[in-house]
Amino acid sequence: MPTRLTNYFLRTLREDPADAEVTSHKLLVRAGYIRRQAPGVFAWLPLGLRVKAKIEAIIREEMTNAGAHEVHFPALLPREPYEVTNRWTEYGDALFRLHDRKGADYLLAPTHEEVFTLLVKDLYNSYKDLPLSIYQIQDKYRDEARPRAGLLRGREFTMKDAYSFDVSDEGLDASYQAQRDAYERIFARLGLEYVIVQADAGAMGGSKSEEFLHPTPVGEDTFVRSAGGYAANVEAFQTIVPESLPVDGQPAPVVFDSPNTPTILTLVDHVNEHEPRTDRAWRAADTLKNVVLALTHLDGRRELVVVGMPGDREVEVKRAEVAFAPAEVEAATESDFAKHPGLVKGYIGPWSPEGPVLGEESASGIRFLVDPRVVEGTAWVTGANIDQKHVLSLVAGRDFVADGVIDISDVRAGDPAPDGSGPVELARGMEIGHVFQLGRKYAEALGLKVLDENGKLATVTMGSYGIGVTRILAILAEGNNDEKGLVWPAAVAPFDVHVLATGKDAAVFDTAETIVAALEASRFDVLYDDRPKVSPGVKFGDAELIGVPKIVIAGRGVADGVVEVWDRATGERTQVPIDGVVAALS
Amino acid sequence: MPTRLTNYFLRTLREDPADAEVTSHKLLVRAGYIRRQAPGVFAWLPLGLRVKAKIEAIIREEMTNAGAHEVHFPALLPREPYEVTNRWTEYGDALFRLHDRKGADYLLAPTHEEVFTLLVKDLYNSYKDLPLSIYQIQDKYRDEARPRAGLLRGREFTMKDAYSFDVSDEGLDASYQAQRDAYERIFARLGLEYVIVQADAGAMGGSKSEEFLHPTPVGEDTFVRSAGGYAANVEAFQTIVPESLPVDGQPAPVVFDSPNTPTILTLVDHVNEHEPRTDRAWRAADTLKNVVLALTHLDGRRELVVVGMPGDREVEVKRAEVAFAPAEVEAATESDFAKHPGLVKGYIGPWSPEGPVLGEESASGIRFLVDPRVVEGTAWVTGANIDQKHVLSLVAGRDFVADGVIDISDVRAGDPAPDGSGPVELARGMEIGHVFQLGRKYAEALGLKVLDENGKLATVTMGSYGIGVTRILAILAEGNNDEKGLVWPAAVAPFDVHVLATGKDAAVFDTAETIVAALEASRFDVLYDDRPKVSPGVKFGDAELIGVPKIVIAGRGVADGVVEVWDRATGERTQVPIDGVVAALS
Repeated sequence: MPTRLTNYFLRTLREDPADAEVTSHKLLVRAGYIRRQAPGVFAWLPLGLRVKAKIEAIIREEMTNAGAHEVHFPALLPREPYEVTNRWTEYGDALFRLHDRKGADYLLAPTHEEVFTLLVKDLYNSYKDLPLSIYQIQDKYRDEARPRAGLLRGREFTMKDAYSFDVSDEGLDASYQAQRDAYERIFARLGLEYVIVQADAGAMGGSKSEEFLHPTPVGEDTFVRSAGGYAANVEAFQTIVPESLPVDGQPAPVVFDSPNTPTILTLVDHVNEHEPRTDRAWRAADTLKNVVLALTHLDGRRELVVVGMPGDREVEVKRAEVAFAPAEVEAATESDFAKHPGLVKGYIGPWSPEGPVLGEESASGIRFLVDPRVVEGTAWVTGANIDQKHVLSLVAGRDFVADGVIDISDVRAGDPAPDGSGPVELARGMEIGHVFQLGRKYAEALGLKVLDENGKLATVTMGSYGIGVTRILAILAEGNNDEKGLVWPAAVAPFDVHVLATGKDAAVFDTAETIVAALEASRFDVLYDDRPKVSPGVKFGDAELIGVPKIVIAGRGVADGVVEVWDRATGERTQVPIDGVVAALS
Repeated sequence: MPTRLTNYFLRTLREDPADAEVTSHKLLVRAGYIRRQAPGVFAWLPLGLRVKAKIEAIIREEMTNAGAHEVHFPALLPREPYEVTNRWTEYGDALFRLHDRKGADYLLAPTHEEVFTLLVKDLYNSYKDLPLSIYQIQDKYRDEARPRAGLLRGREFTMKDAYSFDVSDEGLDASYQAQRDAYERIFARLGLEYVIVQADAGAMGGSKSEEFLHPTPVGEDTFVRSAGGYAANVEAFQTIVPESLPVDGQPAPVVFDSPNTPTILTLVDHVNEHEPRTDRAWRAADTLKNVVLALTHLDGRRELVVVGMPGDREVEVKRAEVAFAPAEVEAATESDFAKHPGLVKGYIGPWSPEGPVLGEESASGIRFLVDPRVVEGTAWVTGANIDQKHVLSLVAGRDFVADGVIDISDVRAGDPAPDGSGPVELARGMEIGHVFQLGRKYAEALGLKVLDENGKLATVTMGSYGIGVTRILAILAEGNNDEKGLVWPAAVAPFDVHVLATGKDAAVFDTAETIVAALEASRFDVLYDDRPKVSPGVKFGDAELIGVPKIVIAGRGVADGVVEVWDRATGERTQVPIDGVVAALS
């Protein structure tokens, strides 16, 4: 049966919704695909549900091709498994928590690693049962601080999440590759451009992780790539560690007066004027900037950490968040400094004439971490921990030793890719998929073991693979539109053909009915604008806004035996004999 | 592609789950269809998800045939709309409530009348837009006090809920009938026996309501039906009101001593011995029993109410709950009696020699309601409100007047149906569908009005129509099994055919592969038990437990060119030539 607009639940809107910032949000609301219920929470109208179902069908097919079987978990889950892995706490405010009438704690699941692990533990016990890949397409919940951009970042959203279970690392590699390949096929079928970038795997305790990013200016993620093929998100970018330099023969540290130089800029000007180099001018990169950060650990403990990095670099917040997770990180406050009078603000350094200032073994006991560029033998201009004084020729490995290395400085266009493939450029993207080797973290925490070939218990190794279904829909809308409205790719369009009967002639409507019936008989999904008293202009406008890729206009030409086939993407209109419509569209 | 058991997520179990009480729950867990996550909360395994999808597909088709369009609402909804209709409060402990990181109140929706109403208000504004029927198939949440019987009463469950919107009452009647007809088609296609019973519409403020009950001993509802075609659930059953009797000429009330007669039984014995009737013996039905109930209103106020009914009747709790809703009702406690010393327990009556005892106008001020049988002119033996004393010949309408009539006495086999169609019998059933004329209650509360043909604002009239998808699945399992396992009807079976390769011969497996390929080519959904080292007995047992209606056994007969086709329901096994399997199953 064709869908007739005289009897469909659709109302197109002329005005953009007041709260919409991005194009996909505006158009999906205006064209009658979705409707807001609460911040980041949407209802799906008939058109939207059709597009969503088409995306889901493609994902299902490719999951089946990858050997994964579909299951379905509840959104409402008990606290206990998430307590075992500590995610009940780690998720912080992003987790919707509730309790039932008996006071038992529940959550609305943001992701399902724990319960998939327990399900397999519950039913399987032998290496013979593995490998196993299972997935679901399911509504997830995250209480985002700033739900934004319509479906791009919602609080209720649909995801495909798959999980693989293997005995061996090689098995995990194969399961991971099968999902990765499926993702490539899915995005190809959806006509969705993507870049596969290395992602940081550390925070989840896993070993390998890649993100599928769709390059788009509305993307929330920054990623880097080189012409030579390297790609990573900024969190995963690894700074090249330079060679160490000899310490022997380097001049001893020299403390000098540097009044009013609390910033790198003022310091560089000062040394160029008062302590000039003979070979070239001093640069910000010659100075060691010591950034004081405050960590809040899960147990509530607050710890100050100083990070030393070249003075031309800044702390990149996202990289710092990942590196210090699960602790939260922020800049130290005045109150933090007040508790540590040994830190002379603006003139901090790891060393003073009286001895080491920073480091767990120093007088302050404050942890001191350095950028990968601060290798042994490098000499720095840095604070002397005395007000209005700095020190020259402070050599790493001789005058100070860090407690560790941390790679949280900002990544810039031109920085060398870690794999030697040349300088990187930066781009913005939106995460549309994520493949992740979890390894044995969840299986260990939740006790998922099977008997191996030798009859011994072996901890299972797992992968986790996500695709954001509703986000993909928004990204497709974001990338496929013009000033008139949406322009869906055929693979996900809500209908294959949109037939318009224009004018008042009964013959036109009769002809349109004939064409609709012929198209349906040839298995086209047809949206039929059969509204009797609506002007052609309104029908054209609605068709452009809705964005079905092929439009058939039955109008005046019917008297001459022709209708128009209108390609929504190119705008091209072609006259076609009435009985040639099916052939023209096939 | 066929589904191969060597690579499927399935583990059948020998033991019934410890918490399972009913057959469907036991079998669905043992056969690998579902797995418990929390009380009343289940995960769907691949087999279960397939059956659920088939039920949903049938419902979708019939909703489309009924002219309804599919939408999809979130489970997570803001409090406000439910506050307007007071259901935020009325749902009591059955509602899962939570709040987001900003402290805003949310709920997990148990049903969606409010937001469907608001959606239509949001988009439509003219009578020309109506009638409209929209529906969703969606996961709902109710925090049941006693989640039981597996999927029969869960806390997370899937429902199809449809809502109709009309301008006129006649329109509502037509929309209601279209859904009601669709339900009859759905249950017929599912092979599910049902009785359509009148349901109480009062509590929801509507005008007409019918339930589809599936008669089953595990049903939670009692319903009554007459041979003449009457059917109602007990809450909706209406007691026939007898004709009034003349008051004139009846003897005056006589107070008499009745020591140690605090119960109806002791009272009847006493009057038969000490105050005998001349025409026949006294019966319990000649006495007026005055039951003291305590209501707790939504605002927390506690009110005592006395209900007078013939002494052979009891209060039926479910009927009382519906009649007094949204107030909660329970038997009065000792503490309630202590606060009302005027009520002489065991000897309570509406009258005493000193005047009226019960009623809003009486000294006690306690509301007094009576059973429909207590009509004017009926004479009763009842308490005299004096310890150890009763009264004879107390005549309704002369000696006492009630504040109102309430029909909450128990319904018994043999009671006359209200439509005159004869005596009723009682049966147990499970609600599988509900069609409901909401009328204008929600539209009024939430301001859903459209311009009518005269350009005036008219409040829309609505219907609400629910089917429990997951409950239907459980009922189908409950009604289709034997001692070996499940026996699915073909319409909802997870697969059309289950092919077993038994034995060790490569030829058997080759033949099975050929048959599987031929079946798949003829569009059968095939589950193929290709496990190489599993005994025929285990394969037969699994096939019986899983319950696919047709089973093909490739075994020893392959050498002679035959396989067996096994009908799971009848147990009949037929030898069929290998190349005749598709024909035999078509």
